[in-house]
Amino acid sequence: MTNDSRRLRFGMVGGGDATSVGALHRNALRLNGDTELVAGVFSHDLEKSRRIGAELGVAEDRVYASAEEMAVAEAARPDGIDFVDISTPNAFHYPASKAFMQQGIHVACEKPLCLTPEEGEDLELVAAESGTLFCLMHTFTGHAMSREARALYEDGVIGQLRTVVVEYPQDWLVDALEQETEQDKTWRSIPELSGRGAAIGDIGSHMENWVHYVTGLRVTAVLANLEAIGAGTMLDNNFQVITKFENGASGFFWGSQVAVGYDNAFKVILLGEKGSIEFWQENNNYLVLRLRDQPAQILSRGSSYSRPESLKYLRTPKGHPEGLTEAFANIYSAFTDAVRDRQAGVVTPEHDYGYPTLSMGLAGVRFFNACVDSQEAGNTWVQL
Amino acid sequence: MTNDSRRLRFGMVGGGDATSVGALHRNALRLNGDTELVAGVFSHDLEKSRRIGAELGVAEDRVYASAEEMAVAEAARPDGIDFVDISTPNAFHYPASKAFMQQGIHVACEKPLCLTPEEGEDLELVAAESGTLFCLMHTFTGHAMSREARALYEDGVIGQLRTVVVEYPQDWLVDALEQETEQDKTWRSIPELSGRGAAIGDIGSHMENWVHYVTGLRVTAVLANLEAIGAGTMLDNNFQVITKFENGASGFFWGSQVAVGYDNAFKVILLGEKGSIEFWQENNNYLVLRLRDQPAQILSRGSSYSRPESLKYLRTPKGHPEGLTEAFANIYSAFTDAVRDRQAGVVTPEHDYGYPTLSMGLAGVRFFNACVDSQEAGNTWVQL
Amino acid sequence: MTNDSRRLRFGMVGGGDATSVGALHRNALRLNGDTELVAGVFSHDLEKSRRIGAELGVAEDRVYASAEEMAVAEAARPDGIDFVDISTPNAFHYPASKAFMQQGIHVACEKPLCLTPEEGEDLELVAAESGTLFCLMHTFTGHAMSREARALYEDGVIGQLRTVVVEYPQDWLVDALEQETEQDKTWRSIPELSGRGAAIGDIGSHMENWVHYVTGLRVTAVLANLEAIGAGTMLDNNFQVITKFENGASGFFWGSQVAVGYDNAFKVILLGEKGSIEFWQENNNYLVLRLRDQPAQILSRGSSYSRPESLKYLRTPKGHPEGLTEAFANIYSAFTDAVRDRQAGVVTPEHDYGYPTLSMGLAGVRFFNACVDSQEAGNTWVQL
Amino acid sequence: MTNDSRRLRFGMVGGGDATSVGALHRNALRLNGDTELVAGVFSHDLEKSRRIGAELGVAEDRVYASAEEMAVAEAARPDGIDFVDISTPNAFHYPASKAFMQQGIHVACEKPLCLTPEEGEDLELVAAESGTLFCLMHTFTGHAMSREARALYEDGVIGQLRTVVVEYPQDWLVDALEQETEQDKTWRSIPELSGRGAAIGDIGSHMENWVHYVTGLRVTAVLANLEAIGAGTMLDNNFQVITKFENGASGFFWGSQVAVGYDNAFKVILLGEKGSIEFWQENNNYLVLRLRDQPAQILSRGSSYSRPESLKYLRTPKGHPEGLTEAFANIYSAFTDAVRDRQAGVVTPEHDYGYPTLSMGLAGVRFFNACVDSQEAGNTWVQL
Ligand SMILES: NC(=O)c1ccc[n+]([C@@H]2O[C@H](COP(=O)([O-])OP(=O)(O)OC[C@H]3O[C@@H](n4cnc5c(N)ncnc54)[C@H](O)[C@@H]3O)[C@@H](O)[C@H]2O)c1
Ligand SMILES: NC(=O)c1ccc[n+]([C@@H]2O[C@H](COP(=O)([O-])OP(=O)(O)OC[C@H]3O[C@@H](n4cnc5c(N)ncnc54)[C@H](O)[C@@H]3O)[C@@H](O)[C@H]2O)c1
Ligand SMILES: NC(=O)c1ccc[n+]([C@@H]2O[C@H](COP(=O)([O-])OP(=O)(O)OC[C@H]3O[C@@H](n4cnc5c(N)ncnc54)[C@H](O)[C@@H]3O)[C@@H](O)[C@H]2O)c1
Ligand SMILES: NC(=O)c1ccc[n+]([C@@H]2O[C@H](COP(=O)([O-])OP(=O)(O)OC[C@H]3O[C@@H](n4cnc5c(N)ncnc54)[C@H](O)[C@@H]3O)[C@@H](O)[C@H]2O)c1
Repeated sequence: MTNDSRRLRFGMVGGGDATSVGALHRNALRLNGDTELVAGVFSHDLEKSRRIGAELGVAEDRVYASAEEMAVAEAARPDGIDFVDISTPNAFHYPASKAFMQQGIHVACEKPLCLTPEEGEDLELVAAESGTLFCLMHTFTGHAMSREARALYEDGVIGQLRTVVVEYPQDWLVDALEQETEQDKTWRSIPELSGRGAAIGDIGSHMENWVHYVTGLRVTAVLANLEAIGAGTMLDNNFQVITKFENGASGFFWGSQVAVGYDNAFKVILLGEKGSIEFWQENNNYLVLRLRDQPAQILSRGSSYSRPESLKYLRTPKGHPEGLTEAFANIYSAFTDAVRDRQAGVVTPEHDYGYPTLSMGLAGVRFFNACVDSQEAGNTWVQL
Repeated sequence: MTNDSRRLRFGMVGGGDATSVGALHRNALRLNGDTELVAGVFSHDLEKSRRIGAELGVAEDRVYASAEEMAVAEAARPDGIDFVDISTPNAFHYPASKAFMQQGIHVACEKPLCLTPEEGEDLELVAAESGTLFCLMHTFTGHAMSREARALYEDGVIGQLRTVVVEYPQDWLVDALEQETEQDKTWRSIPELSGRGAAIGDIGSHMENWVHYVTGLRVTAVLANLEAIGAGTMLDNNFQVITKFENGASGFFWGSQVAVGYDNAFKVILLGEKGSIEFWQENNNYLVLRLRDQPAQILSRGSSYSRPESLKYLRTPKGHPEGLTEAFANIYSAFTDAVRDRQAGVVTPEHDYGYPTLSMGLAGVRFFNACVDSQEAGNTWVQL
Repeated sequence: MTNDSRRLRFGMVGGGDATSVGALHRNALRLNGDTELVAGVFSHDLEKSRRIGAELGVAEDRVYASAEEMAVAEAARPDGIDFVDISTPNAFHYPASKAFMQQGIHVACEKPLCLTPEEGEDLELVAAESGTLFCLMHTFTGHAMSREARALYEDGVIGQLRTVVVEYPQDWLVDALEQETEQDKTWRSIPELSGRGAAIGDIGSHMENWVHYVTGLRVTAVLANLEAIGAGTMLDNNFQVITKFENGASGFFWGSQVAVGYDNAFKVILLGEKGSIEFWQENNNYLVLRLRDQPAQILSRGSSYSRPESLKYLRTPKGHPEGLTEAFANIYSAFTDAVRDRQAGVVTPEHDYGYPTLSMGLAGVRFFNACVDSQEAGNTWVQL
Repeated sequence: MTNDSRRLRFGMVGGGDATSVGALHRNALRLNGDTELVAGVFSHDLEKSRRIGAELGVAEDRVYASAEEMAVAEAARPDGIDFVDISTPNAFHYPASKAFMQQGIHVACEKPLCLTPEEGEDLELVAAESGTLFCLMHTFTGHAMSREARALYEDGVIGQLRTVVVEYPQDWLVDALEQETEQDKTWRSIPELSGRGAAIGDIGSHMENWVHYVTGLRVTAVLANLEAIGAGTMLDNNFQVITKFENGASGFFWGSQVAVGYDNAFKVILLGEKGSIEFWQENNNYLVLRLRDQPAQILSRGSSYSRPESLKYLRTPKGHPEGLTEAFANIYSAFTDAVRDRQAGVVTPEHDYGYPTLSMGLAGVRFFNACVDSQEAGNTWVQL
């Protein structure tokens, strides 16, 4: 934050529980220290929302009953919010984002972008009309080393992508899934709230997004196998997807939420003509770069040889680990840079700021919906 | 080798070049020290074969023109070979194995078993009739920790398999493939010698076999995508396969021979109801075991807590690494144990000795042929 | 921060440059979000200090010329600071800490505590008289897994410590040291500002502290070899120390600031009668626990089996890395818990809050001074 | 072994038990396949020695009562042994080596070379007079990557050594040591058989040797602390040594045989002016190379970029692990190359073959004796 710039004002939609991802958003925004929370709809339940607003120091009259009400009211205030941060269950991303963009308010929204390609296309239209910025919170792209990977790829260090392998095993839903009954199931098990497909939309969208973000390549076809393992009520919790990318490269995605003993082991191997890049989010301060006929290299965040893109929001020196909080914070830093530029009349393509965009979000929604289509069609290729 | 037992006599078919896998077979057999090489067809070219036989100390009259000739001649000798070791290009596995089994000579043969399911079924018939033993050289099953994994699985430590992920990237064919012309192509690029499918038969068969060996589960259906990346003449060199196993579990297999910077990174994650097991052949002295709500455990070969199955052929103490030579040697030890037992009139099921069997080999041939079928049918499910 | 509690007010002494550790302190305190910066002496140079104060939103009249002036003035205000955060060069830790404690203001201070044992003893007296709290910013103790290690040790999981090995290689001073001339040398090369011994006080103190923090054991004797490698002007930049602890255990400490290619590789192996614990700060979300006749265990932060002590300030779920910022933030959380308790009249021993204490700091100062004594005496045992 | 060369004949002194290191020697020599065992004193006990000789196929009249008898008898035979392999307890290395060298028979002997510097000096004289070759079995130097490290160091890749850190924790003596009584103690606990110092001579000698082997630098002074931890009868089982090398570099050696949970974790960090090299014998197929301002590099055995020195005895392709057996076998290969050259009249300095030499062995004996001196003198510097 430069000397004379004021703190940006933001509001939240969602994030009303201590374990919600919205709490991590607040951590990251506090770490950045250049914004202040002034408004919100923290829960569907207005009572609860008010209680949380009070705890968070939000003025009572700026805790609203709905995103739509908040959008209109804040747009009308001279000291209205500069942007909104949306972290509700998936189904509300679309209406909430739309409401704020229509009022000319910039949006940072959780992933997946929305439930259907149609919703996503509509959001693209609205964004184009309103001229608002849209930042999609695909956390892993916020790691400095994801940006290093992107810079390396864009520089042609590994050549054209030939194939990519993405694994994402977790076990945090093992217990939940096995015990969940019809009554106590959470929004993640309810297609109307979560979207078609559960794990594929939840973690599959991270996987597709990271590859898209780093290589700029879109998935053009998928061949998917979605499974529901165990006795719970949830839809898919384990999936394998074979993909084709626009440049002809292939991909292999495996995700699981019942992988006993795995915490959050998102791992990508990008294989190019001249080399390969390995990123493992549980070890996010490093990247492995392999070049033809050379020893494997371990790139360490914050080094003298690091790319400007990964050094941009450096908070701690090399060897002093950064983590998920910084990943979120880096995305917000890129986004608030864009917001300040817009407010100052500077127009730069959103891609250049380094945060995931609405158009990537739409590609992601197409991706996971196509995976469900492929599954429903008996595991056949589906074009996007 | 017990005090009074004599060294077993064996012959080789193949293994005539320093870089052939047959040279590794000889290393392993020498390490074991309980056999002697007395006969062979080391090459298609009799001249070359004689030269090699001489170098290896094989009597001139026991270097033969063909496997068939050798089988008949050796069977007729009072000091004939106890077993034959076959390491020719794939196409010769079937006729050679058959020739020896028909003469009542036990066989250790390289993978894949043969080219087609029909050949494999015929070999099963011949084996049943002749009562000979058959050991398939799927190297990775020879690692002590593969046997530890098998013992853990059989004991139910991780419960029923739910899904499995196998990766096998290599880069040793990158240069070869890109430069290979019609004239200079090796047997691996010629379907008549290699079989339908190249990488899928070559490394895909290792992948399927390891899972089969450890869990006892057969693949019942495959959905495969085979690709030929780069400018060479070879068939597939990169593949993704989604599989179903007989117990309903799913699988995800990725293999590549153009993965720049990867040496021989065969890695498996077996995910069960109660835990998971991770094996990485480049780090073959360890196994990672993850159990529900417990820290991940690193099992080290040769420890006080190791299973008898992995301790059986221990050659070096814990912390003193064993490698591929021991993996081969362990398979031979199991096989020669079986041969000696048979010669002593003791009949035990081959499975119990711990080497991969003919029936596993047949499953493997069905597997890779089904993958090619799936590819040819436009990537659809093919039942085995 | 509970609902009705107000933000604590704090002031800073030091931290006036973007690369100063004080900037990381502010990051951590912002992440916690329960304090506000209201006063400071950010630099020796009042002009610079004012400029920084303004940037940080500190009222002009609360930017002071010296720590002493600030202590008196803030103590006199009804809205005076609740605690001070000191991050100046080492030499100023003592006078500044003393000044604030004498005014009854709680202190969080950077390491090492001070320059000499005499200063440290004086601080203990002042603390006892004033009844103020004192938190020493030994960062690595703030990692959740350091607290896990402490809980494991206190529970007797590895039995009594037998020996400990601590390594701490860095390379960040390689260039500096080689180029530094008499004119441009920084405070780290000036004994009056840095203390006797450079690396031994700077990183050696972290090493001794971590072991003391986790095991509760004091070093009673040292046998040290301090070296100045390379062409710079600095004192020691590489050292080896053999130690004895009060329970008879031995220790071996190696630290280097000219270890080319090492970022900040602080690593400890605690070896006990029944097991051992390994902590590596560059991989701070894990701990390796080895127990007799059992596989090595990898403990992952935030797991179901984690100790309450390491879960206490959990910010992100398991598998979502935390880093140095959280380590600092955890120390502050413990400290502000203590400050609030004191303000509420609750008196609990400082040890129980989990932050490093003044008495640990004094032990650390004795440690590094004894190391210099040992070096000066020709590398002989020096009792502490 | 070239076509026309005969197998070398060798005899053994020691190696009479399945768990003796001599059994590993035989494994390695069989793997090489270019030697045959024809004579031996396998045990002090002639009866036992004869039984073992018979099992190993050694003619009855070539099983001798003592090394001295064997040396004389074998030297007298036209088909006498080409070299002897000695793997007795330490105390017998000296008399046995001397006996064979005096008869002009080349020697491969286990470490440490002997018990005292005087013995070692005498062996140097005898070797000079007899013109025999002497190979010291310091196993870890046999790993291909130790030779890669040596080649890198000799090429100046990391510049002059500045400091070195060697760790060697094991736990295999924990149980033994605690239970050992006066009656049942093994030769390792008896100074007359083991030498002054136990662990320091046993594993300390490996540590000093590896550094000497790779860098060519001798230790010139030691400052040692030797400890006997636990209730057993053994001498030291844990030690810390600070060293000085002839070029002014320092060193830090920690060894332990009561490090619960550590298998055989020999690890070295060589720190030079321009970079550093890390070798970990439990992961012996790799080396980490760190160069200034560059990413860390993982060198993999058998790669296109590997040095000729490490490729020389390559047995398995990259990514197919080699282990301890190959380490032993590589040392023997270098030694038998030298023996054959000598027999053919070619004289090349022993250093160039790549096996550890007698002169290195003497340096090692001086090293561990000096460590004991340092301990006895109250942990003071002792010059070598
Ligand atoms: N980027 C990441 O790594 C990541 C991680 C977790 C979750 N997420 C995404 O964040 C979103 C929220 O997930 P979560 O795990 O925090 O869920 P959650 O159920 O824990 O929290 C959702 C919060 O939204 C509130 N809410 C529900 N309906 C609302 C409405 N209509 N208006 C306002 N608030 C409402 C709830 O009260 C709750 O506090 C999901 O879209 C999910 O995909 C992303
Ligand atoms: N288990 C493993 O890890 C592993 C590794 C490599 C190869 N293999 C298998 O081993 C086999 C051989 O592969 P390779 O890499 O050694 O091939 P290669 O081409 O290097 O060697 C094949 C050898 O067989 C000889 N040969 C060819 N035709 C013959 C015939 N008709 N009769 C006798 N000898 C003949 C050749 O002269 C050559 O020496 C293949 O089936 C392959 O799949 C297995
Ligand atoms: N805990 C850790 O991990 C860690 C890391 C780095 C530094 N440190 C410690 O933090 C302290 C500062 O180190 P640094 O690297 O930030 O040094 P630095 O030189 O980068 O910063 C010191 C700051 O203090 C200010 N200052 C100097 N004299 C002052 C005075 N008399 N009054 C007020 N401010 C003054 C300077 O203007 C500067 O902004 C040292 O004691 C060091 O040991 C600890
Ligand atoms: N290089 C390595 O990695 C390594 C590993 C282990 C041991 N060693 C060394 O090898 C030597 C033997 O150690 P070990 O562990 O095999 O011991 P061990 O006690 O297991 O075996 C020693 C063998 O020597 C025989 N022996 C004893 N006295 C003899 C004599 N006078 N003449 C002939 N044979 C005799 C014994 O019968 C026994 O078979 C030691 O010097 C040790 O330092 C080296």
